[in-house]
Amino acid sequence: MRGVLRLSPARRGVLVSGGGDGGGAPAPFALACPAPLDEGDRVTLGHGSGGRLTQRLLEEIILPAFESPALDRRDDQAVVDAGPGRLAFTTDGFVITPLFFPGGDIGKLAVHGTVNDLAMSGAAPRFLSVAFILEEGLPLDTLRRVVLSMRDAARACGVAIVTGDTKVVGRGHADRIFVTTSGVGSVPDGVSLSSDRVRPGDVAIVSGTIADHGMAVMAARDELGFGDALSSDTAPLHGLVAALLASRADVRCLRDPTRGGLAAALVEIAARSRVAVEIDEPRLPVRPAVRGACELLGLDPLFVANEGKLVAFVAERDAARALDALRAHPLGRDAAVVARATDRAAGNVVRTSIGSRRALDLPWTDPLPRIC
Amino acid sequence: MRGVLRLSPARRGVLVSGGGDGGGAPAPFALACPAPLDEGDRVTLGHGSGGRLTQRLLEEIILPAFESPALDRRDDQAVVDAGPGRLAFTTDGFVITPLFFPGGDIGKLAVHGTVNDLAMSGAAPRFLSVAFILEEGLPLDTLRRVVLSMRDAARACGVAIVTGDTKVVGRGHADRIFVTTSGVGSVPDGVSLSSDRVRPGDVAIVSGTIADHGMAVMAARDELGFGDALSSDTAPLHGLVAALLASRADVRCLRDPTRGGLAAALVEIAARSRVAVEIDEPRLPVRPAVRGACELLGLDPLFVANEGKLVAFVAERDAARALDALRAHPLGRDAAVVARATDRAAGNVVRTSIGSRRALDLPWTDPLPRIC
Repeated sequence: MRGVLRLSPARRGVLVSGGGDGGGAPAPFALACPAPLDEGDRVTLGHGSGGRLTQRLLEEIILPAFESPALDRRDDQAVVDAGPGRLAFTTDGFVITPLFFPGGDIGKLAVHGTVNDLAMSGAAPRFLSVAFILEEGLPLDTLRRVVLSMRDAARACGVAIVTGDTKVVGRGHADRIFVTTSGVGSVPDGVSLSSDRVRPGDVAIVSGTIADHGMAVMAARDELGFGDALSSDTAPLHGLVAALLASRADVRCLRDPTRGGLAAALVEIAARSRVAVEIDEPRLPVRPAVRGACELLGLDPLFVANEGKLVAFVAERDAARALDALRAHPLGRDAAVVARATDRAAGNVVRTSIGSRRALDLPWTDPLPRIC
Repeated sequence: MRGVLRLSPARRGVLVSGGGDGGGAPAPFALACPAPLDEGDRVTLGHGSGGRLTQRLLEEIILPAFESPALDRRDDQAVVDAGPGRLAFTTDGFVITPLFFPGGDIGKLAVHGTVNDLAMSGAAPRFLSVAFILEEGLPLDTLRRVVLSMRDAARACGVAIVTGDTKVVGRGHADRIFVTTSGVGSVPDGVSLSSDRVRPGDVAIVSGTIADHGMAVMAARDELGFGDALSSDTAPLHGLVAALLASRADVRCLRDPTRGGLAAALVEIAARSRVAVEIDEPRLPVRPAVRGACELLGLDPLFVANEGKLVAFVAERDAARALDALRAHPLGRDAAVVARATDRAAGNVVRTSIGSRRALDLPWTDPLPRIC
């Protein structure tokens, strides 16, 4: 029996329970409303109804996993103390496929992604919200795995998941599970990072190898057959950012080059800051296995998504100091200066190599849909 | 031509542009990457790629509509001044179908829903984030209508949309458009509202007629043939809440009874506050057309969603003052005392009428999936 009631006059009174046990067990009215079966422990439309199945989903899977006093209050919002300073606020939807891939899963990615978007402003990430859109038929075990992964990731990041929402749509109206996380954090006084602050002469440092995430997801889609050689770099970057800012280097702007890769981040910064950005292409750190996979597929690592890297534009005089600070952190060991801002052709990105200069343009589209 | 590139070794170099016009016009490399066609002004996978189609979607539809300086910065987060006081933080996903219905649309609902979740804590709503998940093939005009509706609703509410995200999934992997909004607001000192603060003797006031939203959406699904007699009550409630709090009535708890209706809100409050809630059923305000539609379909207005109503639990001595304050506001003209907290059978909700008492139980599921 499916969890959908078609409405018709014959269904009069179907919503009025005859029970009243006040607990979670099936009540006599189940005779009139034979909908709640879990379908072999799968998500049903009833789990999104606001009724008892929704309560059960919350009580059996979501609340116990997140262990959040604010969530346990079950108000429609959390009231928190965000601390002093300006507030950073961000949101990201995650629709990645497959849900689980070498190095991570959609839940971990949804936590790291939002933590990183906060961190790129220099903020200390504090609180997250989570909104699930579930497809009817999703195994509850899949949801459980995702939720536990989010719990672990949030714990490791030192952020609290304080408020959330769950919706269910019918089969074929979503693809298993979509996760939208939003986050707030507090920006320390004196920190001001934005993509319009880069000046000619500034250098761009990436914190490590590029294209790992995108190629790992490609491999997980079984289009490559690379096995375990590729793994997502998904990681929370706020600690690395704190280390960089503590170096007192004059950091103009931070970006985590996710969708669209390092190229998209540089194009946007060049446009916003009205500078040219010259990439020193041989300096781009790329793992050999990733480079091999890219070459085989005709992909350019510059355009492939990362989930645990940042690019920092830093005043030239502070480049060494910034590089040292990044390299001293476990997530920045492979940091390298890879580009420089100039005033030669403002708004453009140029890829340079020995004896060659080529303009870089973003592609119209991307061969890697649903990479995050 | 579709906006999806299948990967194969034959596609080597397809992502490397030969152009470099630096602008938005199709460049020579379009010959190598023939993907960007809009398919008759519909959303393509490329619009979610992080590439130039994503930029164009932002620049042509989203940024001009929202007119938000924070969004225009195109950083991955907004840095805002949230003002003094504690922070309220909330999120909600919207998957309603149809997208447009009498009295509102998914965009308006997504703004009001999050504004109201903030308002129920007593917070002044300040900033919203918006995350879209779009299905390939969605007419861009539909997106435009939704975005403009959000803009208008946010403006009317006095909140700023400051950060956002857009993802695209393939046909059949979503249902046109899902919108997840999150919001932050500031809670005035001294205000503390929560579902665990209700005490025996407190009275429950609803701010107006119930079940309007759910029945209007049902009508819009063409299952009723009621025409225009039914209209959603979607409305932002923070002004009404401010008026109520200004009355200095001792308000314990506020809820906007959306999914699951007034019943779900009362059941949760009874459980969290460990009180019984006795509903005085004849006092429930229900529009005649809504009551007629409910009777025809065998639906109980108590279980049907609202999007512009609140229920307030207030100390008994302040009931008249609270009622006066609500009725003096345009959104509270039909406010009525409809229930009372008692200590007779803590945790239960009882519906009383002349000579009858019946336990109220939430249904397991809901005959109105995707009502918000």
